[in-house]
Amino acid sequence: MTDARNVCVLGVGLIGGSLMRALGPDRAFGWNRSAPTGEAATAAGFDVSTDLAHTLGRAAREDALVVVGVPLPALDATLDAVAEHAPGVALTDVISVKGPVLEAVRRRGLAARFVGGHPMAGTAHSGWDATDPGLFRGATWLVAADDDADPDTWQRVAAMAGDCGSRLVSATSAEHDAAVARISHVGHVLAEALALAGARGGDLALALAAGSFRDGTRVAGTAPDLVRAICEPNREALLGVLDECLADLTAARESLAADGTLGPLIDDGHRARRTYEDVQAGRGGAGGDDDDDNAVTDDAITIRPGAPGWLDVLRAAGSQGRAVRLAD
Amino acid sequence: MTDARNVCVLGVGLIGGSLMRALGPDRAFGWNRSAPTGEAATAAGFDVSTDLAHTLGRAAREDALVVVGVPLPALDATLDAVAEHAPGVALTDVISVKGPVLEAVRRRGLAARFVGGHPMAGTAHSGWDATDPGLFRGATWLVAADDDADPDTWQRVAAMAGDCGSRLVSATSAEHDAAVARISHVGHVLAEALALAGARGGDLALALAAGSFRDGTRVAGTAPDLVRAICEPNREALLGVLDECLADLTAARESLAADGTLGPLIDDGHRARRTYEDVQAGRGGAGGDDDDDNAVTDDAITIRPGAPGWLDVLRAAGSQGRAVRLAD
Repeated sequence: MTDARNVCVLGVGLIGGSLMRALGPDRAFGWNRSAPTGEAATAAGFDVSTDLAHTLGRAAREDALVVVGVPLPALDATLDAVAEHAPGVALTDVISVKGPVLEAVRRRGLAARFVGGHPMAGTAHSGWDATDPGLFRGATWLVAADDDADPDTWQRVAAMAGDCGSRLVSATSAEHDAAVARISHVGHVLAEALALAGARGGDLALALAAGSFRDGTRVAGTAPDLVRAICEPNREALLGVLDECLADLTAARESLAADGTLGPLIDDGHRARRTYEDVQAGRGGAGGDDDDDNAVTDDAITIRPGAPGWLDVLRAAGSQGRAVRLAD
Repeated sequence: MTDARNVCVLGVGLIGGSLMRALGPDRAFGWNRSAPTGEAATAAGFDVSTDLAHTLGRAAREDALVVVGVPLPALDATLDAVAEHAPGVALTDVISVKGPVLEAVRRRGLAARFVGGHPMAGTAHSGWDATDPGLFRGATWLVAADDDADPDTWQRVAAMAGDCGSRLVSATSAEHDAAVARISHVGHVLAEALALAGARGGDLALALAAGSFRDGTRVAGTAPDLVRAICEPNREALLGVLDECLADLTAARESLAADGTLGPLIDDGHRARRTYEDVQAGRGGAGGDDDDDNAVTDDAITIRPGAPGWLDVLRAAGSQGRAVRLAD
């Protein structure tokens, strides 16, 4: 089911701008701090202003779903404006860490109609020129299942993500942050270390580099400020995973020095990659219990936001990596 | 210039088999230890035997260039057979580490006509079914510039690599091994650690994984025995690079814990990735000093194997990441 009320996007860079383009100008309007990006969006047919109070006033009047798409360092100022100009709106975000956003929302008394979100999609590029209306198609969109989540807002966020072609997965903000420390943030740090190791070998090493180095360092091409804004707010979870990796790498190093073998890491890592491939192959394959014809054909759980125990159902599905979908 | 004498490939798995297919059945024949692979190659029109003495006898009679394509653990047995049945042949290899191969060749008195090689190409798959005659097209093929290298063999190896569509880069075996520890071997180890960190997050983490995890863990899909055979023989160089990475990652971890920032690694890694992109963009671009119409259009150095100082010219070009090509 679709809930096609208006969407107000605050910050129309790569993610917010792609969302706006996926929804189209009849449904999405927005705001951007920098005028050139706003002008580019306007030239593309969208109503994008640089006047945040004005944009939020319209969102409040139309009961639009407000999507915070600014980078985390700009979150506080953006939420201050929401609290001042549109304190009652339905609110979500597309920021890559969920715990700090939830805290910032709660501090301002905006939690009653807030449900966090995170589309697992992106590129190493940024800004309006990098936007793509198909960016979220086939991607996973995390819609948070935190305590006291508002069912109506949850439904609107999930419907919007579904309209963008995304697969819905749900978990608490803390569960999300622990997971992305593992599958995104620590990967950024390792990619930077690999790029640096390669470049220290000078032009010969870089000339010999082939596909494995290209792929392994790809995310080191992301702008450093953006990498920091993505990773550093998830400090506690990232520290834990970095410590695990340091222990694994140190053990492999010691084994190589002592015995000439890299030890169990090679088998363990290979098995882990296979498990990942299996989980990803489970998406969109056959094997669902039902025979509906949704685009999402994996074994998705049907959810009725607000039904008794709905948050527990969401969390249980998420812990199994299973998608959810809205009941018709 | 091309030196199209016959080539005898020992071991027709991914690399050896792809080489055979790139050269064609009129020019390449070979041997493989396992019968099914030999039969698959034979069915594809190639003369591939499981009788190593017989194959080496033919190579000696025809003065073929013998290419050792077996995995490193099978090197000693293969070189023993060469020393017994064809001690005078021109010899090269396509193994991913060069120092240990050179030592093994020298121990058997086979160095006079040996020039090591390493095509920087591969996939996570292996065996004849994974072979591809276009595997080396556009890839970099390291042709070693070790002391006392035989100019005639160097020329034959370089011509063969060029016939496969590869770009030639030269360096000593030790320089090669130091470089690939940086741009290949340590990347394997980091990819295994990343895959393991992700899988420890369970199904939720793996369901949320997107492109950065897929790319960052791709080489963890390589068979563990092959990863060990590639990385472990390069122990000394790999230990040094692992120590650098551990120091960089530990510093980032300490900075994050103390100050909430990942520190200089993010900027340094990004700059390193940009340098890599620049080096790779230099390939095939304009900017050469001459206006020949070779497929390799970067600023390649022309080399005449055996001319005075030719090994110094090769090493100097390699240290700058510059390609070389044979004089007409």
